[in-house]
Amino acid sequence: MRHDGRTENTGRPVTIETDYLIHPEGSVLISVGNTKVICTASIEERVPPFLRGSGQGWVTAEYSMLPRATGQRTQRESSKGKVGGRTMEIQRLIGRALRAVIDLGALGERTVWIDCDVIQADGGTRTASITGAFVAMCIAVAKVTEEKGLKKFPIKDYLAAISVGKTEEGILILDLDYPEDSSAAVDMNVVMTGAGEFVELQGTGEEATFTRQEMNDLVELAEVGIHRLIDIQKDVLGPITSQIDVQEGDLL
Amino acid sequence: MRHDGRTENTGRPVTIETDYLIHPEGSVLISVGNTKVICTASIEERVPPFLRGSGQGWVTAEYSMLPRATGQRTQRESSKGKVGGRTMEIQRLIGRALRAVIDLGALGERTVWIDCDVIQADGGTRTASITGAFVAMCIAVAKVTEEKGLKKFPIKDYLAAISVGKTEEGILILDLDYPEDSSAAVDMNVVMTGAGEFVELQGTGEEATFTRQEMNDLVELAEVGIHRLIDIQKDVLGPITSQIDVQEGDLL
Amino acid sequence: MRHDGRTENTGRPVTIETDYLIHPEGSVLISVGNTKVICTASIEERVPPFLRGSGQGWVTAEYSMLPRATGQRTQRESSKGKVGGRTMEIQRLIGRALRAVIDLGALGERTVWIDCDVIQADGGTRTASITGAFVAMCIAVAKVTEEKGLKKFPIKDYLAAISVGKTEEGILILDLDYPEDSSAAVDMNVVMTGAGEFVELQGTGEEATFTRQEMNDLVELAEVGIHRLIDIQKDVLGPITSQIDVQEGDLL
Amino acid sequence: MRHDGRTENTGRPVTIETDYLIHPEGSVLISVGNTKVICTASIEERVPPFLRGSGQGWVTAEYSMLPRATGQRTQRESSKGKVGGRTMEIQRLIGRALRAVIDLGALGERTVWIDCDVIQADGGTRTASITGAFVAMCIAVAKVTEEKGLKKFPIKDYLAAISVGKTEEGILILDLDYPEDSSAAVDMNVVMTGAGEFVELQGTGEEATFTRQEMNDLVELAEVGIHRLIDIQKDVLGPITSQIDVQEGDLL
Amino acid sequence: MRHDGRTENTGRPVTIETDYLIHPEGSVLISVGNTKVICTASIEERVPPFLRGSGQGWVTAEYSMLPRATGQRTQRESSKGKVGGRTMEIQRLIGRALRAVIDLGALGERTVWIDCDVIQADGGTRTASITGAFVAMCIAVAKVTEEKGLKKFPIKDYLAAISVGKTEEGILILDLDYPEDSSAAVDMNVVMTGAGEFVELQGTGEEATFTRQEMNDLVELAEVGIHRLIDIQKDVLGPITSQIDVQEGDLL
Amino acid sequence: MRHDGRTENTGRPVTIETDYLIHPEGSVLISVGNTKVICTASIEERVPPFLRGSGQGWVTAEYSMLPRATGQRTQRESSKGKVGGRTMEIQRLIGRALRAVIDLGALGERTVWIDCDVIQADGGTRTASITGAFVAMCIAVAKVTEEKGLKKFPIKDYLAAISVGKTEEGILILDLDYPEDSSAAVDMNVVMTGAGEFVELQGTGEEATFTRQEMNDLVELAEVGIHRLIDIQKDVLGPITSQIDVQEGDLL
Repeated sequence: MRHDGRTENTGRPVTIETDYLIHPEGSVLISVGNTKVICTASIEERVPPFLRGSGQGWVTAEYSMLPRATGQRTQRESSKGKVGGRTMEIQRLIGRALRAVIDLGALGERTVWIDCDVIQADGGTRTASITGAFVAMCIAVAKVTEEKGLKKFPIKDYLAAISVGKTEEGILILDLDYPEDSSAAVDMNVVMTGAGEFVELQGTGEEATFTRQEMNDLVELAEVGIHRLIDIQKDVLGPITSQIDVQEGDLL
Repeated sequence: MRHDGRTENTGRPVTIETDYLIHPEGSVLISVGNTKVICTASIEERVPPFLRGSGQGWVTAEYSMLPRATGQRTQRESSKGKVGGRTMEIQRLIGRALRAVIDLGALGERTVWIDCDVIQADGGTRTASITGAFVAMCIAVAKVTEEKGLKKFPIKDYLAAISVGKTEEGILILDLDYPEDSSAAVDMNVVMTGAGEFVELQGTGEEATFTRQEMNDLVELAEVGIHRLIDIQKDVLGPITSQIDVQEGDLL
Repeated sequence: MRHDGRTENTGRPVTIETDYLIHPEGSVLISVGNTKVICTASIEERVPPFLRGSGQGWVTAEYSMLPRATGQRTQRESSKGKVGGRTMEIQRLIGRALRAVIDLGALGERTVWIDCDVIQADGGTRTASITGAFVAMCIAVAKVTEEKGLKKFPIKDYLAAISVGKTEEGILILDLDYPEDSSAAVDMNVVMTGAGEFVELQGTGEEATFTRQEMNDLVELAEVGIHRLIDIQKDVLGPITSQIDVQEGDLL
Repeated sequence: MRHDGRTENTGRPVTIETDYLIHPEGSVLISVGNTKVICTASIEERVPPFLRGSGQGWVTAEYSMLPRATGQRTQRESSKGKVGGRTMEIQRLIGRALRAVIDLGALGERTVWIDCDVIQADGGTRTASITGAFVAMCIAVAKVTEEKGLKKFPIKDYLAAISVGKTEEGILILDLDYPEDSSAAVDMNVVMTGAGEFVELQGTGEEATFTRQEMNDLVELAEVGIHRLIDIQKDVLGPITSQIDVQEGDLL
Repeated sequence: MRHDGRTENTGRPVTIETDYLIHPEGSVLISVGNTKVICTASIEERVPPFLRGSGQGWVTAEYSMLPRATGQRTQRESSKGKVGGRTMEIQRLIGRALRAVIDLGALGERTVWIDCDVIQADGGTRTASITGAFVAMCIAVAKVTEEKGLKKFPIKDYLAAISVGKTEEGILILDLDYPEDSSAAVDMNVVMTGAGEFVELQGTGEEATFTRQEMNDLVELAEVGIHRLIDIQKDVLGPITSQIDVQEGDLL
Repeated sequence: MRHDGRTENTGRPVTIETDYLIHPEGSVLISVGNTKVICTASIEERVPPFLRGSGQGWVTAEYSMLPRATGQRTQRESSKGKVGGRTMEIQRLIGRALRAVIDLGALGERTVWIDCDVIQADGGTRTASITGAFVAMCIAVAKVTEEKGLKKFPIKDYLAAISVGKTEEGILILDLDYPEDSSAAVDMNVVMTGAGEFVELQGTGEEATFTRQEMNDLVELAEVGIHRLIDIQKDVLGPITSQIDVQEGDLL
């Protein structure tokens, strides 16, 4: 039994509230336990210089935390005058993950800007951001598909992310909250598609190591959690689901 | 009749949800029409260098907007590497306004950090920030008062803010939303106490001017709006109200 | 009697030396008591991106203080690597104020750059900057009007600014010097046109408040000071005065 | 057969030249094919603030590329005024990896600064940096151990890193050079200890995905490459090897 | 005859107005032809970290130009967020030059901050800065000597600077103004003491070269100019001169 | 006899290894005693804005030191977020020096980017950079001359640099290493062409001065050292020498 009463392979309660804000093309508030992230997807009708004239679109992401998303107030990166290493690492991860399930050619020369703003943090903010951002992106891209008459819905498959880890006592657990995460010996973030394939796998020993057997057990635990998240995504996406499912069929 | 059906001296619907986040000592989500701001108050047990050893406390504020709080995505100030002029102006205003109603000696050598993060903008974000931040500060300071056994509740009076303006047609209106604000000839932000005194008055002609009569009429309009906001603050503050009321008595 | 022998409604001695520098299109050295500001107006034959192709011109301002303009040396903002909040607030105010009295369409697609560099500070640097910058702008715009054959002199009215305040003892005074300013309970900056209308009104309680009666009394005091400043401006502008006066007639 | 004649599971020629520079406590030039990195380890007799008084040491890393390490000149990060996301990600990885094999308590309150400067890049610069930095760290720590009379040699095990990947044609290959890396569908960096345990595992689909079977096959390929690198490290470390081997024995 | 009527070995008219500002310990306005620089010397009762506890003082300098000191407006370095290479080069030169004639031990643990702000530029701003800053430093150091009861006047000799150059036609000239400087083939700045020794000699071919004979002729020309500048310095320094002269005697 | 056994007019051993890196158009590793600098020359087929359409090319330089090029680790300028004054001074010097011997019109509208990265420092890094960068530039420009069919080889003469100085004991020495440089009373850097003319001459008293006689003696010492460096350059440049020699003939 874990400190909050969960078993080793139980994820936290998840809700995804769509159309959370009035301005963005797509927006959700995702809650994973006490972790809450506002994810928005904005469509910009142009691409970065390296893609101009290529016919290809782009997906890019930014991530931030409110100063009091955390137990202790953290200084704003705007006041510091620079974006920190942890933030950069996370926003690069979010962008890369989302690009794996979108057909950038079908999107055409436009950019999907993803913004993930953590308003409350309790572990797993990067995986919650990916899971929520996928939904926001689907909603925004569905609007573009209709308004601009795209020939094909550009999103090819579902995408969700979860953390798994090994405690100091050597127990493998799913979906770590902040107290678990900050004392874990090994921390692994897994990003998977609806088809069950990996997009990103980042396992890190925190002044510790892990064996190949543990790697396989952790990945298995993550798969359980991700299937559940994708079920929740399907639920909140409703009719948009049918457009992705066609794509999935194409892949098989 | 205004574009959203309000009369000239009607403010927008206001709600203040307290204890919106689990980590900060005080937090609210204030909604003024479609404008939504998360205001938090954090207590730090030290003061800036210029106050060390003085026995005085400090109140300081930071303000930010999520990139898609607005109709068009705005670039993050952390990505730009610097805080813009508008943001600086607003956060200096919020800090100054709140310091006018707090007895910094009674607070003792600690800092109240105010963070106002606009998650959705539709005009009046700085006045909503002040009105919400006052409530968050009261909640945080009430906790400090009890936990640290302060001799006196340091907050001396209520504080709220609202905008008034003159339209291009010369009509004076209360509580401008974004379409009204962006086309107004004159824009005035008024910060007042529960005792009906001014803390801050900022009237600005946008490539336009205003007469002394208009100044007086605008101020009168603002007073109406502010009384209503302070009634709402009293409602949500509940028992904390009695501590401020003692202070108000002291002042009279 | 005030610490320097002035009565409550007496401003400090003011001189405006025109053509102070050889390079700028317009330049003055304004002295208000011991406060000395070099104000220059530069004409650039292009406008910021948001105005390109609009046929409209622009006025923008920058403000700075020499490190030893003040009693204690202050660090240069160039060494710090960023412009501070106070500087931003002031330069935004100067630009906004000047734009209120210029017909940007008549100016055409060019920018007037205003630079206010305080070489000696003794209170009231922002109001001295506005008063001096107006004269520099008139001189520069008169040159453009002639050289480029503008159909109409684009400046519509005079513009000057002054500070008023309430001392800790509750006395209302005009044109505060630094010792008065740093101990004042209320500080108000007023920007007015020759027609006696407000362009900007910024009243601030410094951990203090002010009543509506005080607001009106302060504004009245400011009007006295501003009329005197505009008389001085007319004096130094000489023949350019006739071009502004035509404009003023148009307005009445 | 790969474009440079290697088989799928063959790594590139590796040399590690120790004591490459005269000033640092430890320094190597590592060459992995055409990739060349100068790795230095510097000892500083103090720790970051969060460790002061803890009795614990620290290892931190910085990574950079010369402008013409690459085919096209890349702008210096010092000229841009900020460190990019890729650099931050890599230097955080190097520091984290090295900390996994050092006993920070045995090191005592001192910092090992690792600097990895890529003078020529042809793929795999981050893994070459880790492999080379480990050797530089051993040399520097051996000096400290002797000079300061540490009770125990703080390095607990060997550490090396290599990349593996999946080509667009679906072939799994070891130790990608730049042409292979830039066209790979999946890229995985593996950091392992002499005991064969993982310290870090980062698999990334570049607009592509990978299955669990592929994950296992890639990891197996990496193990082959890492054993060879650790043999080379043992060779160049010479007598220092005996001190690490004692540690390894302790672990078993 | 030069474009302004001067002969080859004639300097421009020079005036040095002392006590130009009320706040700094020492201040002058130096005019060299149309070049005008405000030089201030501020005393700070502490030294940079590398000198703490050494009993030695320090002299450091900053240099800046107003945006319209020049014919075309130049962007402020505070707006750019960084100090440019030219500015850095000049302020390092000024500080180094002044340190050559001050006995830092006699000064004691305090810093002389020199600020040179060019309000009008017409060539030779760095040499005018050094010549003016020397006078400002003498005035400030004389105050310190008296107020703090220093045992010895710390300034050991006079110091002045001038530019010499070779025109495109190969003619050697003294004290170049801006049109001469911008077309010169060779530009040389010379900083000398009252005793006629060099402190700094910087000769630069601008896409051109110079011979050893030309070097000697240029230096001779500079000596003429510097003697005249030192005579002017003696004039404006008045009684302080006697304190420096004692020093000079010591040296001989 | 000097601390390393050299006589006063003996330079250190010099080697220049060409084609040190595979990517740049020109690259060398120059060693001057223990000072080692990687110098690369990159050709970019465009020029800075101020030269577009002029038919002229440009040469620009950047300079940096690895953190452990020095005895104590120095912080990276990329981490500090800005390039320091010393670096700026040196890279401006390198660019200016190289431009003196290249015919920018013959080069055509392209930029030669010079990068000098000090991997080991023992005094004289700026002069070694110039001497090495000249060779790298020749190699790169020879390639451009052939590939683009330039009518004329744009490099007009050889270029090398060396330091000379006066010790605290008043002895004049050639090619100072770090211990000599850091204790020298006078330091002079001399940049000369193959024709024996000066491009740059920078003599600096470090809290000391020098006479005209010493200036001449130092320059003479430098000439000896530079002739030797140019002989080494000719050696390593091999056949390219003939192209420069034609140019030299043109000049005579």
